[in-house]
Amino acid sequence: MTAEHDFYGVISPVLTPFGDDGNPDKARFLAHAKWLLADGCTGMAPFGTTGEANSLGVEERMGLLDALIDGGIDPSVLMPGTGLCALSDTVTVTKHAVERGCGGVMTLPPFYYKGMSDDGLFAYFSDFIERVGDDRLKVYLYHIPPVAVVGFSVELVGRLIEAFPGVVVGLKDSSGDWSNTKALLDAYPGFTVFPGSEIFLLDGMRNGAAGCITATGNVNARMIRNVYDNWQGDRAEELQAEITAMRKTIQSRPMIPMLKSIVAHFTGDPGWARVRPPFLPLDAAEAQAGIAELTEQYGFELKAA
Amino acid sequence: MTAEHDFYGVISPVLTPFGDDGNPDKARFLAHAKWLLADGCTGMAPFGTTGEANSLGVEERMGLLDALIDGGIDPSVLMPGTGLCALSDTVTVTKHAVERGCGGVMTLPPFYYKGMSDDGLFAYFSDFIERVGDDRLKVYLYHIPPVAVVGFSVELVGRLIEAFPGVVVGLKDSSGDWSNTKALLDAYPGFTVFPGSEIFLLDGMRNGAAGCITATGNVNARMIRNVYDNWQGDRAEELQAEITAMRKTIQSRPMIPMLKSIVAHFTGDPGWARVRPPFLPLDAAEAQAGIAELTEQYGFELKAA
Repeated sequence: MTAEHDFYGVISPVLTPFGDDGNPDKARFLAHAKWLLADGCTGMAPFGTTGEANSLGVEERMGLLDALIDGGIDPSVLMPGTGLCALSDTVTVTKHAVERGCGGVMTLPPFYYKGMSDDGLFAYFSDFIERVGDDRLKVYLYHIPPVAVVGFSVELVGRLIEAFPGVVVGLKDSSGDWSNTKALLDAYPGFTVFPGSEIFLLDGMRNGAAGCITATGNVNARMIRNVYDNWQGDRAEELQAEITAMRKTIQSRPMIPMLKSIVAHFTGDPGWARVRPPFLPLDAAEAQAGIAELTEQYGFELKAA
Repeated sequence: MTAEHDFYGVISPVLTPFGDDGNPDKARFLAHAKWLLADGCTGMAPFGTTGEANSLGVEERMGLLDALIDGGIDPSVLMPGTGLCALSDTVTVTKHAVERGCGGVMTLPPFYYKGMSDDGLFAYFSDFIERVGDDRLKVYLYHIPPVAVVGFSVELVGRLIEAFPGVVVGLKDSSGDWSNTKALLDAYPGFTVFPGSEIFLLDGMRNGAAGCITATGNVNARMIRNVYDNWQGDRAEELQAEITAMRKTIQSRPMIPMLKSIVAHFTGDPGWARVRPPFLPLDAAEAQAGIAELTEQYGFELKAA
């Protein structure tokens, strides 16, 4: 599997820390990214939904990506989110990512206007790829209809693969709908599909997925990686059951604030719990209750790399 | 009414024309804005939903606003849309608008993340207003849940009015739900409320609205203005019925492409029909059918100013 894909395994979106002033904190961001790689991530997708990316401006995204690469992260393992509402902003941040050598980009459909046709979305991606105009561009489509509302139909994915071979190379399916992931895997065997949650990791691997891209990779990459590495082994079902249970525990509270609270707790750095509005931090008692569930039920901890 | 409000009457969002290269066309944009004022608009809201604003990048919006003001439009009649997903981008374009002397800004809630709490949206607007940090800032909230999905509850509007007197001064209600508009008018008598369609103009005026902000102002401002000017007259119901019927004719086809086709037809400039993906232009026959309905049923035409 790994030889066929530029990206594979356990890819984590990267939580975006904010400083006292409400601005993104590059030092904490870089340190967390390095820890993610040490904890078992095979790649990272900064500026996903989990990274509060759509609360970040164009300049903030580019500055944070520079901080990772200038700080020593190999850009080939980075798949930054570059899909904004507007074609022009999407092109700006994508060009920057490609020029910095990123292995790929993860691109939302334009998500403000609703009810757009597949033809309109196809036209958007055609314009996008033409405007970026760089042979190094590798696009991973970002399908997350529960949040973006706008998504990619299975048919549209096929049209994009056919029209842009070697450019539209993969998709993250955060629909939460395994039947959609399965339909994509069945329809396009050479295409790189990542379920958007480790809940579907083992099913995905058995059906040709490349791994998973998952929010909880921010805190639990090691155990998710263990499932990826041993998906053909005897204990695969058991290992999968455990990461599924942990995922459900984590997502029983608001996901992004909960993940940040976990990082804040285990790093002893309360500033990590900050979120940018419209998100609000989790109530401290609620965060502690969530952390207690994880530690008591699973012996969970974040270890320093 | 007019003395109480900075903005009143018939305010049109401004269609955004694109050139052969797919980039916004400043010359056509300025010419259209001047024509709108000549046709009866009392103000303009460039970069609304109708202006394909969320297909425009940060730099494109600022460049187009500069083109209007540098081209001789009085900035006090301009209420540019400045609500992007990200706080930082929203602050950037808002500061620019305030510094250029715009009479107000029309600001969407952050619309990528769904299911955010009123507390989270309140925190966003608090941060927004503090970061812009300019006494000249006048914010008109942009409530358009059919497109943005995220909107303002009546309670949240009240909290913002109370917390930011003289700053949060108005709202455009594009919910399409008269009961919501009425609830806002009843709850906050000193607050400037614009229904987002001329269908609600007469009802709005009778209940204390300031006029309307409406997409079809791009082609039909003169007749809508006539209702505004004569809402207390004997023929008000009849005049309202006619603009309501015309609105329904126009919106029976995809609104933005239809409006652009109308402008293209009457200016003899086919380039006006261009839209930016994910929108697609209206099929030519369909556009002609729509124009024929308008001209035959209502003697409709766009006249040069």
